[in-house]
Amino acid sequence: MQQVVIIVAGGSGSRMGSQIPKQFLNVGGRPILMATIETFYQYNSEMLQIVVLPASQMELWKGLCDSYKFTIPHQVTAGGETRFHSVKNGLAMVKGDAVVGIHDGVRPLVSHETLDRCYSGALENGNAIPALPLTESIRRVNGQTNSAEDRNAFVSVQTPQVFRSEQLTTAYDVPFSALFTDDASVVEHAGFAINLVVGNHENIKITTPLDLKIAELLMKTPKP
Amino acid sequence: MQQVVIIVAGGSGSRMGSQIPKQFLNVGGRPILMATIETFYQYNSEMLQIVVLPASQMELWKGLCDSYKFTIPHQVTAGGETRFHSVKNGLAMVKGDAVVGIHDGVRPLVSHETLDRCYSGALENGNAIPALPLTESIRRVNGQTNSAEDRNAFVSVQTPQVFRSEQLTTAYDVPFSALFTDDASVVEHAGFAINLVVGNHENIKITTPLDLKIAELLMKTPKP
Repeated sequence: MQQVVIIVAGGSGSRMGSQIPKQFLNVGGRPILMATIETFYQYNSEMLQIVVLPASQMELWKGLCDSYKFTIPHQVTAGGETRFHSVKNGLAMVKGDAVVGIHDGVRPLVSHETLDRCYSGALENGNAIPALPLTESIRRVNGQTNSAEDRNAFVSVQTPQVFRSEQLTTAYDVPFSALFTDDASVVEHAGFAINLVVGNHENIKITTPLDLKIAELLMKTPKP
Repeated sequence: MQQVVIIVAGGSGSRMGSQIPKQFLNVGGRPILMATIETFYQYNSEMLQIVVLPASQMELWKGLCDSYKFTIPHQVTAGGETRFHSVKNGLAMVKGDAVVGIHDGVRPLVSHETLDRCYSGALENGNAIPALPLTESIRRVNGQTNSAEDRNAFVSVQTPQVFRSEQLTTAYDVPFSALFTDDASVVEHAGFAINLVVGNHENIKITTPLDLKIAELLMKTPKP
């Protein structure tokens, strides 16, 4: 079945202390978003890649692709008000039955093993969400007070969150709700059970200058 | 008031894929545990440092201190069956009123600002626990099923967890319970409210070879 990835790249540069939107900052000699697209291309060069960008950044992206002679095929569409709306716009470009991943543009370090688990898992079970155990203790905060929680009762969730297209189109055919924290929560809200698969530790979301340095380091590190 | 840190270094090397206990692996040219002790010494050279090590590793540590000519003053005591027991052993060496931090031996990158917030906060409010927002979405796992959780309702907890000594001695004067996931949970169980302060992102717990690489990188990075 056709594999698709909708890469959502809606970030501004604010947390980076930068004017440049974070998905365009350089990692390993090219904008992060190019590194992310390249990761999926190396995994499956036949995958349909749909990049969702703020309308205001589409010209900039086109210019960057020219400058870097970036030729990996991908479609581009404009994002919406929230991530939910952006995904919906991306989804409108998927025709027919497919296995559709939704991925953060600033996660270039997802491994082929994770991608295998996600796309195979979704094909088999309807969806597959990469997750890892929490590495730190957590506490629940209730206003001014807080209380211990067992971190073993939780997992940390990454992307791509991958779904059979029929689950996504059903799930996204609803009005936006503030309860939608990620794509899995939208699909869960539509009544589908969510299946977790194992992610990879290197698959960090690059949102701070520190993350950018760590990502550069990880790209230089030979895979185990 | 006297400042104390109890540094708990009970790890084996298993998650590192190493025979060497992780606290003795090299970071920036010396064993991690030495880097951690040095961090506290640079913050306050008058701080009483108590290192809790498995009894079986005490000779090895003594040998390492000789080899590296490591002369920062610290006391050493033997750990117990669990972290709870190890802390209790360290606590037995604290005399009189003090502000006592309990710190992971493999967290050399705690900042002076975090230490300030923890030790001042504990002096003022009885305790202070460094915490940060969660950076990833989380899901709650219940056996075979799982469900969305609002990550904004939680914080991720670091060390040092710092307490007025009277809170610690009261709290640790109980039998061990499996509900004790960290020091804050022990003190909370004794009826004290827990106060959160802001930690620092660099204050990672070094438990995998990847963490070791990231720590080396962070040690080379000039502080912002």
